[in-house]
Amino acid sequence: MKAIKDSVHGHVRLDPVAADLLETPAFQRLRHIKQLSTVRLVFPSANHTRFEHSLGVYHLATRALRGLALDDDTAAHVRAAALLHDIGHGPYGHQTEGIIHRETGADHDDIGWLITDPDREVTQVLEANGLNPDRVASLVAGEGGVGALVSGELDVDRMDYLVRDAHHTGVPYGSVDVGRLVNELRLLGGTPTGTTSADTADLVLAEGNVATAESLLVARSLMNAVVYRHHVSRVAGAMLERACERLLASTDRSIREFRRMADHDLLVALGESVPELGRRIERRDLYKRAVWVGLGDVPAGTVDAGHAEERAAEREIAERLGLDAHAVIVDVPKRPGLKEAASTVIVDGVPQRLEDASELVSALRAAERRRWRLGVYCPGEHVDAVHEVAREVLGIRGGR
Amino acid sequence: MKAIKDSVHGHVRLDPVAADLLETPAFQRLRHIKQLSTVRLVFPSANHTRFEHSLGVYHLATRALRGLALDDDTAAHVRAAALLHDIGHGPYGHQTEGIIHRETGADHDDIGWLITDPDREVTQVLEANGLNPDRVASLVAGEGGVGALVSGELDVDRMDYLVRDAHHTGVPYGSVDVGRLVNELRLLGGTPTGTTSADTADLVLAEGNVATAESLLVARSLMNAVVYRHHVSRVAGAMLERACERLLASTDRSIREFRRMADHDLLVALGESVPELGRRIERRDLYKRAVWVGLGDVPAGTVDAGHAEERAAEREIAERLGLDAHAVIVDVPKRPGLKEAASTVIVDGVPQRLEDASELVSALRAAERRRWRLGVYCPGEHVDAVHEVAREVLGIRGGR
Amino acid sequence: MKAIKDSVHGHVRLDPVAADLLETPAFQRLRHIKQLSTVRLVFPSANHTRFEHSLGVYHLATRALRGLALDDDTAAHVRAAALLHDIGHGPYGHQTEGIIHRETGADHDDIGWLITDPDREVTQVLEANGLNPDRVASLVAGEGGVGALVSGELDVDRMDYLVRDAHHTGVPYGSVDVGRLVNELRLLGGTPTGTTSADTADLVLAEGNVATAESLLVARSLMNAVVYRHHVSRVAGAMLERACERLLASTDRSIREFRRMADHDLLVALGESVPELGRRIERRDLYKRAVWVGLGDVPAGTVDAGHAEERAAEREIAERLGLDAHAVIVDVPKRPGLKEAASTVIVDGVPQRLEDASELVSALRAAERRRWRLGVYCPGEHVDAVHEVAREVLGIRGGR
Amino acid sequence: MKAIKDSVHGHVRLDPVAADLLETPAFQRLRHIKQLSTVRLVFPSANHTRFEHSLGVYHLATRALRGLALDDDTAAHVRAAALLHDIGHGPYGHQTEGIIHRETGADHDDIGWLITDPDREVTQVLEANGLNPDRVASLVAGEGGVGALVSGELDVDRMDYLVRDAHHTGVPYGSVDVGRLVNELRLLGGTPTGTTSADTADLVLAEGNVATAESLLVARSLMNAVVYRHHVSRVAGAMLERACERLLASTDRSIREFRRMADHDLLVALGESVPELGRRIERRDLYKRAVWVGLGDVPAGTVDAGHAEERAAEREIAERLGLDAHAVIVDVPKRPGLKEAASTVIVDGVPQRLEDASELVSALRAAERRRWRLGVYCPGEHVDAVHEVAREVLGIRGGR
Repeated sequence: MKAIKDSVHGHVRLDPVAADLLETPAFQRLRHIKQLSTVRLVFPSANHTRFEHSLGVYHLATRALRGLALDDDTAAHVRAAALLHDIGHGPYGHQTEGIIHRETGADHDDIGWLITDPDREVTQVLEANGLNPDRVASLVAGEGGVGALVSGELDVDRMDYLVRDAHHTGVPYGSVDVGRLVNELRLLGGTPTGTTSADTADLVLAEGNVATAESLLVARSLMNAVVYRHHVSRVAGAMLERACERLLASTDRSIREFRRMADHDLLVALGESVPELGRRIERRDLYKRAVWVGLGDVPAGTVDAGHAEERAAEREIAERLGLDAHAVIVDVPKRPGLKEAASTVIVDGVPQRLEDASELVSALRAAERRRWRLGVYCPGEHVDAVHEVAREVLGIRGGR
Repeated sequence: MKAIKDSVHGHVRLDPVAADLLETPAFQRLRHIKQLSTVRLVFPSANHTRFEHSLGVYHLATRALRGLALDDDTAAHVRAAALLHDIGHGPYGHQTEGIIHRETGADHDDIGWLITDPDREVTQVLEANGLNPDRVASLVAGEGGVGALVSGELDVDRMDYLVRDAHHTGVPYGSVDVGRLVNELRLLGGTPTGTTSADTADLVLAEGNVATAESLLVARSLMNAVVYRHHVSRVAGAMLERACERLLASTDRSIREFRRMADHDLLVALGESVPELGRRIERRDLYKRAVWVGLGDVPAGTVDAGHAEERAAEREIAERLGLDAHAVIVDVPKRPGLKEAASTVIVDGVPQRLEDASELVSALRAAERRRWRLGVYCPGEHVDAVHEVAREVLGIRGGR
Repeated sequence: MKAIKDSVHGHVRLDPVAADLLETPAFQRLRHIKQLSTVRLVFPSANHTRFEHSLGVYHLATRALRGLALDDDTAAHVRAAALLHDIGHGPYGHQTEGIIHRETGADHDDIGWLITDPDREVTQVLEANGLNPDRVASLVAGEGGVGALVSGELDVDRMDYLVRDAHHTGVPYGSVDVGRLVNELRLLGGTPTGTTSADTADLVLAEGNVATAESLLVARSLMNAVVYRHHVSRVAGAMLERACERLLASTDRSIREFRRMADHDLLVALGESVPELGRRIERRDLYKRAVWVGLGDVPAGTVDAGHAEERAAEREIAERLGLDAHAVIVDVPKRPGLKEAASTVIVDGVPQRLEDASELVSALRAAERRRWRLGVYCPGEHVDAVHEVAREVLGIRGGR
Repeated sequence: MKAIKDSVHGHVRLDPVAADLLETPAFQRLRHIKQLSTVRLVFPSANHTRFEHSLGVYHLATRALRGLALDDDTAAHVRAAALLHDIGHGPYGHQTEGIIHRETGADHDDIGWLITDPDREVTQVLEANGLNPDRVASLVAGEGGVGALVSGELDVDRMDYLVRDAHHTGVPYGSVDVGRLVNELRLLGGTPTGTTSADTADLVLAEGNVATAESLLVARSLMNAVVYRHHVSRVAGAMLERACERLLASTDRSIREFRRMADHDLLVALGESVPELGRRIERRDLYKRAVWVGLGDVPAGTVDAGHAEERAAEREIAERLGLDAHAVIVDVPKRPGLKEAASTVIVDGVPQRLEDASELVSALRAAERRRWRLGVYCPGEHVDAVHEVAREVLGIRGGR
């Protein structure tokens, strides 16, 4: 069995299907998509890629499957889905997901389009090994009971990225107990031997693991606060998104081509087609925060404004100040949520949703709300001017 | 400068006072006091000692002092206090703290008695180096503003034991970001240059560290749940405490001699004087849980019962069943608390108590209450009988 | 399957036989035998025990067995032998091995006597699970081809102790690539399906692993230099050995009782029966080096002198100086060797001994010779006097 | 003081000069130069950059300087040199060093050209902070006694990359004891207080560190064998070098522009201008080894052939087989050397070269020679044909 050395899990052994999938261009491309995109501008060691993360997710799925007693065919589909779960990502991962979704309606975990792709290497490998590409795609989307192992509240994706991001940023909060987590997963209900039943089973944590589930939730909440939503990464990410929109608007590059670019393709394309923003991102010469306010200071209408309203507000602010249309960025994150809150844990023999078993869930939700920030960014020299006008345009009351 | 290799912090460099203190019998004795006493019966790698922990606390104090701009004399006293903070521990550390407190009125961080001790080596070293033993003792007790660095909500003791216990148990939850914590400590108020002012200053975390403070709280809460209060460790600890009481009752060993024993002395003494319990502890042949119920099932009077009532209940249960007086152990932990909740953090320029700045505090308090358990333990063969009688005697309603 | 958390390998899962063996007093006793005995006086974090090490060896054996395709019965015997390989150790492990060997002729890996032991719990567990105690004992002694996995040049014992000692001392040199090592082990020759053939097979490293084998050799050589043979540990060890001899001479404790003591039993017994040495060891108040010279300065006759001659020289030196008979310790280590040099690796398809495949072997042998030191130790105040006389008595020329 | 989180060293605190240098485009560019270029095709986690490595080298220099008692001005120059030591690297670091050297005569540690660079930001920052750019450049080149700390046998560059590469590849062999190394460095000779004397001093390891020095040598030797010279990385590197030569030949891109590219610029440029090779590198669709032979099988003339002869041999092989001129790559590494062999260590008070103090040096040199391989690579389908012809053209006797 082929083995690949991973800095987080040590030797990762590959089954023959995985070894073949690894060779496809769609998977090799993940070498060139960084896991944490603009976070590396704050944590310079965070250069790990979706390639190694995908290997890690595959490894954890393989370990978790040992305890789940699924039939071989289902297990083989789950392993393939775990390995392939991120091949639908565009360049810079989540950072371009909004653009791609607006243009195509598809999210990164919708990999169906890749199956009907002209090159079709992934599909060919799956079929040559007796696997059903549609079933793999459906598992990647988290469908069916056992799909929750690939994408769900207790998925191995989350387990891998938390420990991997901790290893590479140097921030320890993500260090969850992966060994315990994969050992304690159980499938409840449904005969675990057939496709159908695996579809209806529930993935849960065994008795005695409320703290284990809490630790997962806490890890993500602290990593959100300190790493994933660091303002420098958000500023750079927002600049990147605007640059990508202008790239698509100014060239005849199709969204289909765009979503298949890798990080380096995008960085060079931006440097050529949107040079001012591209250069700034490359050299970490970022916009500054003109406004940075919490939920309590922002009208609900602004919080829930869509993409079009955001862009309209940006234009209005710039116009009033006589600035270039692209000099102002309004960045309104989604209302905070905590997917893991819906994890199921067994307590005294009864499956319970984590939010019913632990007081931490609502507190962590409150903390997410407390940490939510609307930002308006612009070049440093315009910060004061933009501050005043942006607050007016967006209806912001207190804060600064 | 002498350096000692530590498995957690790497090279720990010792100033000359520390190097001398290290050689005293009182400090060398810490080599023979394990940090986590009976926890090692659950996590077999947890054999680290208060010797290495004390070195670690000294090391973190030294690093934190770099940013606090205290005068040299105060800093020297703080470093000595950090190194010596645990020399007052009896054998098996916290496990014998209750006994020693009942007999002497002193806690482990009351080291004044050691200063007037006949051998007096520690005092001699301090005085020979121009340090005031009473001031060191007062810092160990957490007195004065800067004493909070040695014993307080944000003390380096806690930081060291969390990461060290994580390293040695293999449970990652304690992995706090020690580098960030020591870098972000500040002393508020008081001129930081004189003894007096250091006495009134407040130790706080700088702006932008609510999540840092939360991480400390969360780390301890999860370590409590999974490590420190694991039921096997609690059963063994309760057996050990009973065995010690019988040892003191059956021999003419004074409490003064007792508190200066090391772990190995105690284990051998128990094997000789209380052989049945001593052997069981040594071989991990432990009592089983006859009752294990949460706060909601226990009358307040039972929760708040003192040591004498607990022992009386034990005797009554044993008597009713015709068992040996020592065959039943009633273990009622203190009501849960979270000292770190009173940490001060700077938020928007204003010092705030963590519990006012973070929703997590009350949720973690609730989780501590949820995890609280009263236990009644006895030899495996009596579990069913003891279960019934103990519930009656203690007034327990639901649960099991 | 029961799992135990280990600080080095994470979750160690126990098969049912292992879970039963764990409960025996002979195995529980290993909780009280430290892996590195007196090394902890230099590296204070090195308090790990033979209990956790034995779990680690069991874990690595289980992983290595996955790739070796042995029959189930052989594999079960190997796993049991891996778990039990150290139960024959006396208190303080290797430090008392010489005494026990002189008195009984047995080494620590001779566990046959435990099988005929009166308590017989280990034997009973083995037999109850259909395992042959004699075969287990023979595997512990490294007999038969597959016994090399438990005790041989490429055994999992060595792999575990190197990484574990690195983890606990903080000295990184022992960090071998355990994952690669267990993955690359192969059994050559003999049908791997029967007892007989497993007896004659050779344990080797697969093609492409000369550097892997070298890394193992280098790791041990550097750990020897920096950790295992640190002079402070050697001085304390030599003091301990003398104290044990006097303990056995002065009490009616039989060698049979002695070898079943645990570390704490011995430390207390020494404190009572040989108080001066006992106290010194406990408080790290050690003898100093009066002589410390390399191979080139010592006559061959002295290097190869046996235990009796060493003791005679000690007495002679003390006598000439009018010192107490126990005030001088002569410590002559065995001539250096490197067991791993005989490892077999496959090179271009041909099994070769590592010493034929790598120039490093002879260099490391030379380094071991260069680092060899004869020591004479005594209380600090006699160092100068002992220095002169000891050199005369032992025929030492140069050096100091 | 600004601090940056590093995954290897934790918090790295930056002095004001370093903080300013960090903002220059020349330094920010290092975010886009990977430390191990093509090694990531074998070890997928090895995506760390020269940016974080440079921070690490700066951090270790700062720690080492604490013990060296240099005057403040010299120390400030050394810190700046440590931070800037890699800004002279071209895209893909060492992989393009040969090309740049052939075209410009400069190596990566010749950063003088950057000082006279049109943008001059680095120079401006240095001068604004009272530092002499020429002196910094000279330290980067390892000149003057103290320059050895930046570039020499015991430089902090080596210490950082070994532990960093171990952390990111997952291969433990590079885990040297950084804490001990920086603590044990000493400057011998020369008054340590003036510029002149720092120029003539010798950087050495203090008494008792032969094993420490050996560990550094061994770490690099094993990392060479397993990581740095892995054949897959060598094949990809050789393909990259040929692709770069063709890029330079086929476009009007000057070598000056080329050396200032970052990894992503180069990868995209190759994809456009040398698409066949560029695509193969990006997708890890590599040439295969047609010849792979050791020193003993290659005539000295071939080993010592220069770049022109290598290219001529490639062309001849391709021509004889009627292949495209670019289908064959001849890869002849330099004769092996071990720079660290010249490290100085103090033994019994006398400074000695490591090669005189340790038998390991010559053995490791021999091992380097044993591991040396000449390779000839081509597309998989031509391997057999190229094998025969290449052996003839290159005069190779045995091997395969």
